[in-house]
Amino acid sequence: MSTDHPPRPSRRGFLKAGGAAVAAGASLGTGLTTSQNAQARTQPHAPADPQLAVEPFYGAHQGGIVTPQQSHTYVAALDLSTDRREDVIALLRAWTDAAARLTQGGTAAPLPTDSAGASKAAPDSGDVLGLGPCGLTITFGFGPGLFTHEGKDRYGLAARRPDALVDLPRFNGDQLIKEKTGGDLFIQACANDQQVAFHAVRQLARLAYGTAAMRWGQAGFLSGPRGQTPRNLMGFKDGTNNPSTAKPQLMNEFVWAGASADAPWMEGGTYTVVRRIRITLEHWDNTELDFQEQVFGRHKYSGAPIGKKNEFDAVDLKAEDKDGNPVIPENSHVRLSNQASNNGAQILRRSYSYNDGTNFYIERWPPWRQETEYDAGLIFIAHQSDPRTGFIPINDRLAKFDMMNQFTTHVGSAIFAVPPGAKPGSYIGAGLFET
Amino acid sequence: MSTDHPPRPSRRGFLKAGGAAVAAGASLGTGLTTSQNAQARTQPHAPADPQLAVEPFYGAHQGGIVTPQQSHTYVAALDLSTDRREDVIALLRAWTDAAARLTQGGTAAPLPTDSAGASKAAPDSGDVLGLGPCGLTITFGFGPGLFTHEGKDRYGLAARRPDALVDLPRFNGDQLIKEKTGGDLFIQACANDQQVAFHAVRQLARLAYGTAAMRWGQAGFLSGPRGQTPRNLMGFKDGTNNPSTAKPQLMNEFVWAGASADAPWMEGGTYTVVRRIRITLEHWDNTELDFQEQVFGRHKYSGAPIGKKNEFDAVDLKAEDKDGNPVIPENSHVRLSNQASNNGAQILRRSYSYNDGTNFYIERWPPWRQETEYDAGLIFIAHQSDPRTGFIPINDRLAKFDMMNQFTTHVGSAIFAVPPGAKPGSYIGAGLFET
Repeated sequence: MSTDHPPRPSRRGFLKAGGAAVAAGASLGTGLTTSQNAQARTQPHAPADPQLAVEPFYGAHQGGIVTPQQSHTYVAALDLSTDRREDVIALLRAWTDAAARLTQGGTAAPLPTDSAGASKAAPDSGDVLGLGPCGLTITFGFGPGLFTHEGKDRYGLAARRPDALVDLPRFNGDQLIKEKTGGDLFIQACANDQQVAFHAVRQLARLAYGTAAMRWGQAGFLSGPRGQTPRNLMGFKDGTNNPSTAKPQLMNEFVWAGASADAPWMEGGTYTVVRRIRITLEHWDNTELDFQEQVFGRHKYSGAPIGKKNEFDAVDLKAEDKDGNPVIPENSHVRLSNQASNNGAQILRRSYSYNDGTNFYIERWPPWRQETEYDAGLIFIAHQSDPRTGFIPINDRLAKFDMMNQFTTHVGSAIFAVPPGAKPGSYIGAGLFET
Repeated sequence: MSTDHPPRPSRRGFLKAGGAAVAAGASLGTGLTTSQNAQARTQPHAPADPQLAVEPFYGAHQGGIVTPQQSHTYVAALDLSTDRREDVIALLRAWTDAAARLTQGGTAAPLPTDSAGASKAAPDSGDVLGLGPCGLTITFGFGPGLFTHEGKDRYGLAARRPDALVDLPRFNGDQLIKEKTGGDLFIQACANDQQVAFHAVRQLARLAYGTAAMRWGQAGFLSGPRGQTPRNLMGFKDGTNNPSTAKPQLMNEFVWAGASADAPWMEGGTYTVVRRIRITLEHWDNTELDFQEQVFGRHKYSGAPIGKKNEFDAVDLKAEDKDGNPVIPENSHVRLSNQASNNGAQILRRSYSYNDGTNFYIERWPPWRQETEYDAGLIFIAHQSDPRTGFIPINDRLAKFDMMNQFTTHVGSAIFAVPPGAKPGSYIGAGLFET
């Protein structure tokens, strides 16, 4: 049967895509030099066709953190099942090599080029052949379980756990589902195509068979008019108040981890919090427009702070109406999450919507409906230099006071130390294991 | 608070999109004439920007059946909770009007234009403002429960149930989940953006509050190199052998319902079968490439039938190898589903992949793994003039003999009578209620 095989493509970028993808494919396996990489980062390659976009893999930082947000994601956490440190290192090496190929538009490993390979399982599922790199980024992170697991120091890493990688406290209103919470290892794949994002995680999870098993996986998406702030499923613009990724000083202060004494290997990395936030869209849709705006503290259609005209007008938390009441309500989301309400703290939000069909649900706020509802909402993803001054105090306040809690429930949660980027020839997390 | 509202957009197509969306928006509410509609159908409007694509709503047939497949879908089924025939008619009228607006890039109803509307819930969730029509089609269908519900003829329609709208038999291997099966009313929204597809169903389901409740909803997607047959999550090209929608004779024979004596109101409609098919991707990915090809009866990378070179080469079911064995295996998917194996029957498949994260799963074939696995696979959607000669005999054979069953499990199922398109001023299904 296999003697009459047609020639096999060596990678998807070569199948039908234009010159940009071929050029990207040509760098496969060699890796980009650091200077090429820096150039690519500061002059992002953004062709008109989002299928042809390509992001560098190697560099000082991992991709997918300050990278302009792609339209889709698939995030996943895995639990390590091995007790051997060298297995973990081998996995991270394999992941690094595969991720470098995948992000540049390649398959996880070269496909068989003749019939000799047909009697084995192929090293790539092949479902995105011909699709181009699609701006794919792959970001890896380490959960608390890599350092200590049920009190056990499996890999001799317990002493290297960063102080900033805290176990998240229980927040007011949390209804966490164990199967959507935690995890020893984290993979975030973002791309301008949802099959390309999932494909990446699928190949990487397969490389982990026998070493780490899937704990949870979650697809997400971001729809938005190009060049404008996207609206989330609540119909409001989301992300307006993010610190600007164009300002390195802000990124160094709020996003990138510094060279701390407890975890020097994290310099240039970040700490990432993932929360699966279910939204009762049915309830929200039947809520008065002006109450929706009070919940957010913004006008719905323009995105402007209440009392202002334009989306990017500054939020004036001191403004009062003629009766002396705050124009932006005390318990509005924009006030509670604002830098000025949080001792100057900022986090870089890079969230996606999710939409997992429907299931039976019991609402936890009036009108306490019990019915088949959308299992949809927000995959909240936030990067920060230290969650102890970032997500934790900000979310503590939100969880207690935010009016939005009437419509949102945090049902999944995880925290990861995301190490810096890898150098060609090395691997993600090398600094943790080798110094 | 509401006096300083910025002006509100009257519909999303007017916000930022280019001329095409504005032109589309200009036809809102008036509807297209039949001849305009016919022209639009035969000369599909396909601008380079998929956000600006627009499909007609009114016409002889509903959209979303022979419409070139968009990149995303959200399909849903609702159960009627009313006992009043006039409630059902009112719902179908409201759905028709809203769908006509939504498909042309509008909101479900006009948004409030000044602060007078702020103290009420807005008639549209607003989450796709600015996104353009995105080629949206909305297709409505009627399940068996519209005609008879628990032996009761709620709406005086039992005698008008088409003979072709049979209750699907239980097929070999079915593991149907009640919450993902059946339904009295069907909505299929397809668009070049997943938030636009979901948005449409969300507004329509909201219009049904008090009359019909969500039974199940499901997002789907289709990634593919443009102009090529897309690959499904198994990595094989899917849909190669569909009857050509460019051949009206084939569509009349296999897709469109004729003027049957039992259901004259279905002329120009179709019968739609939806199956949620979970695929054990983990198992599949570790299956030898040549066995994968035997399962499909096609080469993976080229899509050619086994023994042929090119995707569209004819499937030769009689070819034998030198030992006299069939080149295309007896139990391969392409042989069992081929027209020649099914008394000439054909169905129009218009399926999407789905990807709902992960959950605990017990595989039903060796190696019988029990673990957290992808809840991903295929939302199989097939249109046909009569399921008794279409899906049912074809799937009966597949369910018994298809080698693919080792990797696939049907976990959801539904069948609907999809009536013809509506005329402007009328509504979907008018022929069922009014003649």
